[in-house]
Amino acid sequence: MTGETIRWENDAGEVSLLDQTALPGRVRRIRCRDVERLAVAIRRLEIRGAPALGVAGAFGVALAAARSRERELTRFLADVAEAAELLCSTRPTAVNLSWGIDRVLSRVRAARSIEEGRRVALAEAKSVAEEDALTCRRIGDQGAALLPDRCTVLTHCNAGALATSDWGTALGVVRSAVAMGKDVRVVACETRPLLQGARLTAWELSRDGIPVTVIVDSAAASLMQSGEVDCVIVGADRIARDAVFNKVGTYMHAVCACHHGIPFYVAAPHSTFDPGSTAADIIVEERKGEEIRFRGNEKMVPDGAGVRNPAFDATPLALVTAIITEDGILRPPYDLTAAGKRRQRR
Amino acid sequence: MTGETIRWENDAGEVSLLDQTALPGRVRRIRCRDVERLAVAIRRLEIRGAPALGVAGAFGVALAAARSRERELTRFLADVAEAAELLCSTRPTAVNLSWGIDRVLSRVRAARSIEEGRRVALAEAKSVAEEDALTCRRIGDQGAALLPDRCTVLTHCNAGALATSDWGTALGVVRSAVAMGKDVRVVACETRPLLQGARLTAWELSRDGIPVTVIVDSAAASLMQSGEVDCVIVGADRIARDAVFNKVGTYMHAVCACHHGIPFYVAAPHSTFDPGSTAADIIVEERKGEEIRFRGNEKMVPDGAGVRNPAFDATPLALVTAIITEDGILRPPYDLTAAGKRRQRR
Repeated sequence: MTGETIRWENDAGEVSLLDQTALPGRVRRIRCRDVERLAVAIRRLEIRGAPALGVAGAFGVALAAARSRERELTRFLADVAEAAELLCSTRPTAVNLSWGIDRVLSRVRAARSIEEGRRVALAEAKSVAEEDALTCRRIGDQGAALLPDRCTVLTHCNAGALATSDWGTALGVVRSAVAMGKDVRVVACETRPLLQGARLTAWELSRDGIPVTVIVDSAAASLMQSGEVDCVIVGADRIARDAVFNKVGTYMHAVCACHHGIPFYVAAPHSTFDPGSTAADIIVEERKGEEIRFRGNEKMVPDGAGVRNPAFDATPLALVTAIITEDGILRPPYDLTAAGKRRQRR
Repeated sequence: MTGETIRWENDAGEVSLLDQTALPGRVRRIRCRDVERLAVAIRRLEIRGAPALGVAGAFGVALAAARSRERELTRFLADVAEAAELLCSTRPTAVNLSWGIDRVLSRVRAARSIEEGRRVALAEAKSVAEEDALTCRRIGDQGAALLPDRCTVLTHCNAGALATSDWGTALGVVRSAVAMGKDVRVVACETRPLLQGARLTAWELSRDGIPVTVIVDSAAASLMQSGEVDCVIVGADRIARDAVFNKVGTYMHAVCACHHGIPFYVAAPHSTFDPGSTAADIIVEERKGEEIRFRGNEKMVPDGAGVRNPAFDATPLALVTAIITEDGILRPPYDLTAAGKRRQRR
C-alpha cells in the first residue's frame, strides 16, 4: 500500500492522505492544498505515527515551496521556513516530524533559484517517503528473525503501514514474519483514548488476512499472565539516550512484560533516535481532556472532576529487550550515539 | 447516601436502584417490580459492584417472596428458589451475589408459613443492606489509618458508595481518611470498556468534594513512575485462596505498583472471601464484544478482527500489600480460611 497513507498528487500538486480519524468506518482521502490544511490534519491526527509524520513534514515543506507566491529567492526561503515552523509546532514529541522537515528545508535553502528550490524540495520529500518504505521493509526483515515460527505478538497503538509510508515498523516485523511463512497472531490493544489499536491496527492487519484480536489496554497483563503473549512489539515516537517515548500505555506493557519474562521489542528507524536528549528534556504532549471526557457527544466524566491526557510515556531502555532498526538489532547496553552518527553520515 | 444505590420501597413493595449506566449524564432510578427486571438490571450493569450485588441478591429473594402467587408453602419455596437461581446466573464471578441470595434464601426456607417467609426475607434483606453500610464504614476506618496525611490514591473501576449500600470499600477508605482530616486526592482510572471509573467514581467523589482526576487506564504506570501515586486501593469481586478477582486492569496496576514499590491495597468485606477456591476454579465472566466494538453506534473495530472482553482478572495475593477488611488489616501470609471461619460464626 505504498503511498496510501500519504502521497504527493502529481496532477494537482498537492498532498493527499488517508483520513485515519474516519477508519475503520469510512475509507476517505483528504486533499491538502496548502500547508495550513496539512497542519490541521496533523493536529487532528488525520495523519499520525512517527515515520508518517516525518513524511508529512517533508511533503509539507515541498507543498509550501510549490505554493509560495514570492518571486524573490530570500522572501521565498522565508516563506518556506515559516511554513516549516508551523508544521513543526503541530506536535512536540515525535522527533521524525522535525527530522523530515529539516531534511527538505536544508535542500531548499541550498537552492539558487525559486524554481530549483521547488524542484529539489519535491524530489527530497519523495525520497523521504520512498526511503521510509524501504526502511520499514528492512526493519521488518531484521525483526522477523526474532519471532518464533508460531507466536502471538502483543502491540499497542498503531505502528503499521498507516504510521509509515508502507509496511510499518512493529507491524512491519509481523508482516515480514508472515511473508517468511511464520504463523503470527496479533493482540492489538485498543489504545485509549483515540483507539488507534482498535481502529487502525485491527483494520490494516485484518485487511492483510493476519489474525488480530482487540482487547482493552488493561487486559494485556492478564493475557501475559495466562501465557498467551510471546512477545511485545511497539513502535516509537522518539528514542532518547535513556528512554523510549511512545503512545501512553507502552511503559505499562514494558513493566508487565518484564514481570512475566516476555521479550519487549521496539521497532523504529534511526530517524526516531535522539541521542542528544534524555527523558527529562522531552516535552510530553498533553492533549485535550475532551478526548477522555466525551464518548461521541455523551459526557463520560462529570464536570467536577479533572482529567489528564498525556499522549506519550517514557519507557526506560533498561526494560527494552532489543531495538529493531533498519541496520540491525540493537541490544543493551544501547549506544544510540553511534547509531545517530551513522544516520548523520548518510 | 445510604439506600441511594439500591433500596426497598416500602410503599410499593418493590426494589429501586440508581441506574448506573445513565451516570454521570442523568440521575434516574429504576423500579424493579419483579425479579426478572432486577436480573436484567444486574446483567445490564444498571447495578454493579460486588457488595451492592450482594444487597441486590438479598432484595431480589425478598422481592420473589413478596411477588410469588403460590398459596402452598412447598410451591412458594420452589418459586422463590427458582427466582434465586435466576438471580445467581446473572453474573458468575462476584461471590457476594450468591452470598446475599443464600443468606436470605436460608431464612425463607426455615419459615413455617408463606407469610412468615415473606416477612423474614424482607427483614433479612434489609439487614444485609444495613450491615453492608456498616461494614463499609468499618473498612473505611480501618484503611484510613494506612494513608499518609497528604497523599494521592490511585483506584480502578468503582469500589465506592455506588458499589455498596453506602460509603464504599476502596472509596470508603478515602472517605474515612478525608473525614479524619487527611488531604487525599484520587486518581480514577476510567476503566474500559464501560468507564465505571470515569462515570461513577469521578461522579461520587466530586459530588463529595474530594478532588479526583480521571486518566486512561494505561496512563497509571507513568504516573507511578513520576512519583505522583502514593498507593493503589481497589475493591474485589472475589478473593480466592491465592488471588484477588477484580475488574480487568487490577492485575496490571498490581504489577506496576510492585515494580515501583508502591503499596497495593485491596479493600473488601469478608463476604467477598472465598477461601475454598483457588484462581483456577473461578470462572471469569467474558462479556459481549460489542462493549469494545462500538462507541455509541459507531464501529471502532473492523468486522475482520476478533475481540476478547474478560470482565475480571486475577491478582496473585503475593502482589497485595494488605487486605483491608471490616475486622482489621490482613497482611501476608494471608489466612483467608481463618477469616472465612470468622464470617461463618456470625
